[in-house]
Amino acid sequence: MLFELARKRKTVRKFTNDTVRLEDILYCINVAREAPSGMNAQPWRFVIVSDEEIKAKIKEICEKGEREFYRKVGGELKKWLQEKNFSWHKDFLKAPFLLLVFSHIKAPYFIQSTWLAIGYILLALEEKGLSTVTYTPPNPGEVGKLIKAPSEYKLQVILPIGYSADDKEKEDRKDLHEILYINEWKAQLQ
Amino acid sequence: MLFELARKRKTVRKFTNDTVRLEDILYCINVAREAPSGMNAQPWRFVIVSDEEIKAKIKEICEKGEREFYRKVGGELKKWLQEKNFSWHKDFLKAPFLLLVFSHIKAPYFIQSTWLAIGYILLALEEKGLSTVTYTPPNPGEVGKLIKAPSEYKLQVILPIGYSADDKEKEDRKDLHEILYINEWKAQLQ
Repeated sequence: MLFELARKRKTVRKFTNDTVRLEDILYCINVAREAPSGMNAQPWRFVIVSDEEIKAKIKEICEKGEREFYRKVGGELKKWLQEKNFSWHKDFLKAPFLLLVFSHIKAPYFIQSTWLAIGYILLALEEKGLSTVTYTPPNPGEVGKLIKAPSEYKLQVILPIGYSADDKEKEDRKDLHEILYINEWKAQLQ
Repeated sequence: MLFELARKRKTVRKFTNDTVRLEDILYCINVAREAPSGMNAQPWRFVIVSDEEIKAKIKEICEKGEREFYRKVGGELKKWLQEKNFSWHKDFLKAPFLLLVFSHIKAPYFIQSTWLAIGYILLALEEKGLSTVTYTPPNPGEVGKLIKAPSEYKLQVILPIGYSADDKEKEDRKDLHEILYINEWKAQLQ
């Protein structure tokens, strides 16, 4: 049942060193490939990175961007980051696989379509017992350059993929009555 | 298996008059509720519309926007719309249920998070044997006003929900090798 998958699925930032099967990653992309998209443009492109050198370079680029970001960040977001013990260190980028998802910036609704497909991927990973975090680096263009993505494709997310070694619990979700209305904003389900 | 759900799922623009169970819609929202979101802000809000009068008003508002859109549209998109026999008529807005998905425009990554959750919904609908189309009206603000959504929530999509009466085949998808690279853009899977 899909609900069980969605319920069980949590964001994971620590991975074991266990080998991940490439077939499982391909399975997830094959699920995503079936998603709908604006004008059926299928604006998504996927780059699977397992090469250790390229992974290390991606980590270096992202952490450089993160250090800059952490220097500048303030307000609510800063407080939240501190509470969560987040920092510019992105060790999760050492996961067995990095799945980079790009999107064609001239396709209609390219962000919407691509993130809808990312939703498919998260559930497919869970089905395969794999975990990830939807990591959006502060400097996506630099990562794109490294792996030679054409300029009309923008990096939407890096999904580090592996088996969970993260014992943090799933974050709470709002109750249904906090997010749902019937026929009109404010009229709630009885 | 998730792949079977994703594979089978197609966009549907014609619905039967068969009654849809409210529980099935709630099931889908409960699936979406489990999705991750930027800063766990859960920026999504859902409005289930089944009231015939409100549905008719939504249709009227959208079709007004569509008529304007069709008057102005040109180029590639116009050709595509003609090929597909699309017009400003949006009869699919007569579906048994309309599920309106809003997103808080000040939440981080609100578009990305909400569309990821919409991906969850599409798969959950398919699991329940229900169909939809991700309809993005040209004038979302007017629809929001009608159902009294606060101005900081933007309508992302209207999902008309019902049982399929649409015999159109699912649109083709690109092959894996057209959308996937290994380690570097251009290096393909052998």
